[in-house]
Amino acid sequence: MSTELIIKSVSRYIQLSDDEKNYFVSLLQPKTIKRKHFVLREGQVCKYSTFVLSGCLRGFTLDSNGFEHVLNFGPAGWWIADMYSLITQKPGILNIEALEDTEALTLSKTDQEKLYTKIPQFERFFRIITENSLVSYQQRLIDNLSLTAEDRFHNFCKRYPTLINGIPKKQIAAYIGVTPEFFSRMQHNLLKKDRNAPIKR
Amino acid sequence: MSTELIIKSVSRYIQLSDDEKNYFVSLLQPKTIKRKHFVLREGQVCKYSTFVLSGCLRGFTLDSNGFEHVLNFGPAGWWIADMYSLITQKPGILNIEALEDTEALTLSKTDQEKLYTKIPQFERFFRIITENSLVSYQQRLIDNLSLTAEDRFHNFCKRYPTLINGIPKKQIAAYIGVTPEFFSRMQHNLLKKDRNAPIKR
Repeated sequence: MSTELIIKSVSRYIQLSDDEKNYFVSLLQPKTIKRKHFVLREGQVCKYSTFVLSGCLRGFTLDSNGFEHVLNFGPAGWWIADMYSLITQKPGILNIEALEDTEALTLSKTDQEKLYTKIPQFERFFRIITENSLVSYQQRLIDNLSLTAEDRFHNFCKRYPTLINGIPKKQIAAYIGVTPEFFSRMQHNLLKKDRNAPIKR
Repeated sequence: MSTELIIKSVSRYIQLSDDEKNYFVSLLQPKTIKRKHFVLREGQVCKYSTFVLSGCLRGFTLDSNGFEHVLNFGPAGWWIADMYSLITQKPGILNIEALEDTEALTLSKTDQEKLYTKIPQFERFFRIITENSLVSYQQRLIDNLSLTAEDRFHNFCKRYPTLINGIPKKQIAAYIGVTPEFFSRMQHNLLKKDRNAPIKR
């Protein structure tokens, strides 16, 4: 397995010696997830954090009417887990599924705790990435409370620039909270607006 | 100032020596905020995390139509900040206002960084409370995407049990994302439902 991407991601926030890097890497397990296969299903206890090397995962919930609501995407370079279940070790509510064939590295909760004990700098790393994630959720909640679907789509594009053309449109619709039909009409209108926009000179 | 509550909150997750406790406390600044006064306004840079000792703060945004959306409440024992602004040191989008006369302790971003260097255990403390906060936002986002207003109100009651009778109803309405009028009708119907419910024996 290539660990270049995960080491690069960690090195953005903490400086590790070669020994520390090797110890960290020794705790990671490679995982291949075929398209449409699940990493986690609602009701299971989440025992791993998953770091995506290539491909894409998505975390979603199903409501009582059977509608899917996408909580997050995990493209290359992102961590994904059911945080509630990972922390409490109670059954979670998230389904995590591969949108395409995905290569990932997993870190078990047990090994993550070992890591904190052996290399306390990882407390810092996970504090910072959790803070960044918290900010994204705060922003997304504000978007959901106060923005139109069109503005929520613009923010999706900013957050996941690599996904706009890479994943099915119905997944984007389930993320911004509209039906696929509404999403198609909206995209059609946005394109029309773009075509009619005055040319900047 | 009494630091009992904040030391109790910290001691849930990390064990500190008396010297470490004293150093931590030396970084805190007491702050009194009168009802309806602001700790932070949209557009300002957030330079402090605020820990509430008594009273209650609320964080809210204003949308382009002038509607308020409550992002979070800070009753006694809770931390509150504009996390985006605190992390990036860019102007934030959150207003933080006192719902009643409030006593708080503030920890500046600069001192928080000093704290991490001097007592790395605080990385752990803030990692854990950020994780808990992240879980709440995930849950609230799922609620907003998939639950009825009635169920969102039930979840508000679970999250902030001390606030149900303590704060104005229009603040609860702005948190669960309905108008005050809708909220009143809903509460009326819930009470009626309760009265008509079969008595458990």
